[in-house]
Amino acid sequence: MFQTFEVTARPEQGPPRLARLRAAMAEAGLDGFLVPRADAHQGEYVADHDARLAWLTGFTGSAGFCAALGTVAGVFVDGRYRTQVKAQVADVFTPVPWPETGLAEWLRDQLPSGGRVGFDPWLHTVAEVEGWTRALEGSGIEMVQSANLVDAIWEDQPSPPMRPVKPHPIEFAGETAESKCTRLAEVLRKAGHRAAVLTQPDSIMWLLNIRGSDIPRNPVAHGFAVLHDDGRVDLFIAAVKLDGLADHLGPAVTVCLPESLLPALAALAGPVRYDRSTAPQKLADALGAAGVAGNDPCALPKATKTAAEIAGSAAAHLRDGAAMVELLAWLDAQAPGSLRETQVVSRLESCRRKDNALQDISFDTIAGTGPNGAIMHYRVSEETDSVLADGHLLVLDSGGQYLDGTTDITRTIAIGTPGEDERAAFTRVLQGMIAMSRLRWPRGLAGRDIEAIGRMPLWLAGQDFNHGLGHGVGAYLSVHEGPQRLSRMSTVPLEPGMILSNEPGYYREGAFGIRIENLLVAQAAPALPGGDPEREMLCWRTLTFVPIDRRLILRDRLTTDERAWLDAYHREVREKIGPRLGKAANVWLDAATAPI
Amino acid sequence: MFQTFEVTARPEQGPPRLARLRAAMAEAGLDGFLVPRADAHQGEYVADHDARLAWLTGFTGSAGFCAALGTVAGVFVDGRYRTQVKAQVADVFTPVPWPETGLAEWLRDQLPSGGRVGFDPWLHTVAEVEGWTRALEGSGIEMVQSANLVDAIWEDQPSPPMRPVKPHPIEFAGETAESKCTRLAEVLRKAGHRAAVLTQPDSIMWLLNIRGSDIPRNPVAHGFAVLHDDGRVDLFIAAVKLDGLADHLGPAVTVCLPESLLPALAALAGPVRYDRSTAPQKLADALGAAGVAGNDPCALPKATKTAAEIAGSAAAHLRDGAAMVELLAWLDAQAPGSLRETQVVSRLESCRRKDNALQDISFDTIAGTGPNGAIMHYRVSEETDSVLADGHLLVLDSGGQYLDGTTDITRTIAIGTPGEDERAAFTRVLQGMIAMSRLRWPRGLAGRDIEAIGRMPLWLAGQDFNHGLGHGVGAYLSVHEGPQRLSRMSTVPLEPGMILSNEPGYYREGAFGIRIENLLVAQAAPALPGGDPEREMLCWRTLTFVPIDRRLILRDRLTTDERAWLDAYHREVREKIGPRLGKAANVWLDAATAPI
Repeated sequence: MFQTFEVTARPEQGPPRLARLRAAMAEAGLDGFLVPRADAHQGEYVADHDARLAWLTGFTGSAGFCAALGTVAGVFVDGRYRTQVKAQVADVFTPVPWPETGLAEWLRDQLPSGGRVGFDPWLHTVAEVEGWTRALEGSGIEMVQSANLVDAIWEDQPSPPMRPVKPHPIEFAGETAESKCTRLAEVLRKAGHRAAVLTQPDSIMWLLNIRGSDIPRNPVAHGFAVLHDDGRVDLFIAAVKLDGLADHLGPAVTVCLPESLLPALAALAGPVRYDRSTAPQKLADALGAAGVAGNDPCALPKATKTAAEIAGSAAAHLRDGAAMVELLAWLDAQAPGSLRETQVVSRLESCRRKDNALQDISFDTIAGTGPNGAIMHYRVSEETDSVLADGHLLVLDSGGQYLDGTTDITRTIAIGTPGEDERAAFTRVLQGMIAMSRLRWPRGLAGRDIEAIGRMPLWLAGQDFNHGLGHGVGAYLSVHEGPQRLSRMSTVPLEPGMILSNEPGYYREGAFGIRIENLLVAQAAPALPGGDPEREMLCWRTLTFVPIDRRLILRDRLTTDERAWLDAYHREVREKIGPRLGKAANVWLDAATAPI
Repeated sequence: MFQTFEVTARPEQGPPRLARLRAAMAEAGLDGFLVPRADAHQGEYVADHDARLAWLTGFTGSAGFCAALGTVAGVFVDGRYRTQVKAQVADVFTPVPWPETGLAEWLRDQLPSGGRVGFDPWLHTVAEVEGWTRALEGSGIEMVQSANLVDAIWEDQPSPPMRPVKPHPIEFAGETAESKCTRLAEVLRKAGHRAAVLTQPDSIMWLLNIRGSDIPRNPVAHGFAVLHDDGRVDLFIAAVKLDGLADHLGPAVTVCLPESLLPALAALAGPVRYDRSTAPQKLADALGAAGVAGNDPCALPKATKTAAEIAGSAAAHLRDGAAMVELLAWLDAQAPGSLRETQVVSRLESCRRKDNALQDISFDTIAGTGPNGAIMHYRVSEETDSVLADGHLLVLDSGGQYLDGTTDITRTIAIGTPGEDERAAFTRVLQGMIAMSRLRWPRGLAGRDIEAIGRMPLWLAGQDFNHGLGHGVGAYLSVHEGPQRLSRMSTVPLEPGMILSNEPGYYREGAFGIRIENLLVAQAAPALPGGDPEREMLCWRTLTFVPIDRRLILRDRLTTDERAWLDAYHREVREKIGPRLGKAANVWLDAATAPI
């Protein structure tokens, strides 16, 4: 489905819906109710069925929640959404800066002792509930499990998605589901766990070599699974989605009715591992004393790609790179002032869809020109759609889902003649991006230990950016995949086979934005003459091959090593992407990849 | 006291002492006894009275312990001391690689269930005892508090030190003891703590603006203190050390008999804070239920130097830098092959002592030439004393204790004509050192978040070094001061006023070593044109001014920015140190600081 630009939620929808929710609260004997932007799987995207926060408040950001009380309704949003929330919600809602202000702290201010706030235990994680409970200690305010009051009043709520699941072929996965289940079962046995509950759809898809289509942009099916310590799997996914999959799933997988999940969990002999940061409170309650906290056992193996997944991702990136270059060549031929952001988004998606390999785009394309580029998570709509004007920078962040891999690429493009401030900042962002791309580091380090490398050129100029340097990326799975991250928040050691983005940026509010993003895969670094022989080191292999706008680079600010990296990168872009292009795009590519 | 080079412990002393310890164990009904290289204050240096590990085993390293059992005696040492321990202990002792092998794991292998291992609860921290206890769960092996069996058999054990304490003047401290006690008392009140037990001598010295001389290299007196939440302090230090100090200490400080410490703690009303990672188990037992875990409240305020401490440290560094330059000028005039390491050490100490400001050197000078330079914690002795030969690199790591500050500097010096491998590695170490010196970073980051900056040039060549990039340094206090560190282990945010070393290195076993070390103080970074106006950033001010050996630098490998930093640094060295030197040293300095 092509990306659309209509405004899906409007401030005026909110007040009557809030009034009805308050009536439902009163009827249920509650002083408040929580409406999160979350489903039972805590994924980044939710199905229309689960878009309760947007339905109630009008706020369409990808994180946050509403705490509706009798006379006030706080909409808790993080730093990315402070401006957006003001535009999207009516004034019966009060934006709350989060996580600076926590829910418990806010409730203590708003409610008297004895206050009772309802929540749907399917939509909140064990860690979340524990956090509130601890923070509310002594306040007399109680968090109460409840039926979902939004569902009760949302008359035309879309049904939960029921779309078909497909096998994910072994040539792309590189390891059979049986092999994965067998080795994870051994992990469970070693940990003394009898089973693990899997609540994250991408973990289940990875484990069983299947892909779904329940939600946009993300090839997963909603469901739960129990992995037993003998390698058997109970799969709680609606049978209608699994039509024709029995042979692929094999005898070790038992398909169960989704409604049977809670009794099945209650019947399990412990210890049963579940991840407190992602599992709904409802499941922990069903497990009772049999439940023990632990990581999702799929998370690290899924993050560490097989050779087939890496080869597939590399192939997907060449295909995707050719589409990007076609777009960039076309864009460059248009006069400044002649295009709008939405036209770029649609044209890019057309380029990606041309050879029919694209399953979906991997997220809604971000195309922010001029001041819109400074909005880190900008999603163009009919209302914001802006003209690409002379002197603008266009931040273009997009990706594709292909059967063999998931891509995510950002390029910043000069429209007409760029300013000197823009070029200076772009050059620094590029220097950070090159520094990370060139890095070798001792095995055992985490994102936190090396992220500074990609920020230092900005820091030296008194600048920085307010997002992580990079995130993990799946293999035809989530474009944001944990636990690997190039971020101050990540202490998970980087391992060979992990795919991450490298995307430093710079944002000057009201003026311009810059981001340059390649995907990288970690690998064992080859020995160097004179290197320490016993020291195990890792390095990156770049997956993304698309030119970086030379017009934005202050050449003399680059060191010899940086120039050498850039020229070698552009030579490789030309060699790898050129043969996939038409004549006009090839002419453009030659110029775009000339030595700096 | 000048540094000496005699070998103080010999392998042959060990076996008869171990036999006597075993007899004492048998008499006490114990199957083992722990002998740590620690005193009750967990300092880096111990008094002769507390040098039990060296006395028993011969091992003189600065960390480790012996677990003496009936038929085996493990000497647990970390990676720095694997070679040294083999040379120092007789074969009745078994070196154990630590922390790779933990005590509990080793005991489980060596002892049957029911085994009882004694330890002196004054010499082991609460965290340590807890760690063993947890790790021994289910083994049936018991750790048992005991009198110190080494003290019982060590007939000529030196007495505990009883040296005088002196006031530390306000012009160097920058804040009165009264003010410190008042503001820390408020910290305690805010945390709901009635008092805090201080076990680290440097915290007590800092808090009360006093300095002692109980142990070498470190101007502290052994003792304990209790800080009450009204700012009063009970000081448990032998009165003989405090002669004439009553006025300085003032009415808020009560001097108590050291023997009264345990009953005084037992009588305190809780909650009483103590630091589990440094407080002896014996104190926690005395506090009982009144004790609560928390950081030493002096640690962060002590790490964040006052303006007077920073000015004092800067002044001390100029004085110390002049001594270093005199030494380097002299050294350069000697023919390769004409000097031994010990001569350099003694000459350097003479240079430092010349103007009588030196109170002590701040640690035993490391002077390792050629292959000895690759031993990170090398301490030259009569047995290892080596000739500075043509082609050697000399690693010279030293420092001074002055009333106004503590210094720590490493320079690596070419003896004769250096090899190309040496120059290439030196250049990379220098590039890391410059990168950290030039850094600006957003306030809030810790050592872990930025340490990579100082290692990257080595990483790119497949090289690295096995120590942290830097450590905290005190103000006329410990040359190794926590909690601030430039290390993968440190997540304490760096704050303005913290003094740290910046000391990347490179060590090729059996061949050569390199280390370059300056001290830096963190400060608010001045705004830059074009910088983000709302972003609070920090930068370093360099304290150390001594030339870096230009003969070891491959000029063409440096970037323009790196060359500019080096030339500016050398210009500042010349301007700041030149006026303090004699004529010959000035001639040498001019050449040594010429633009690269």
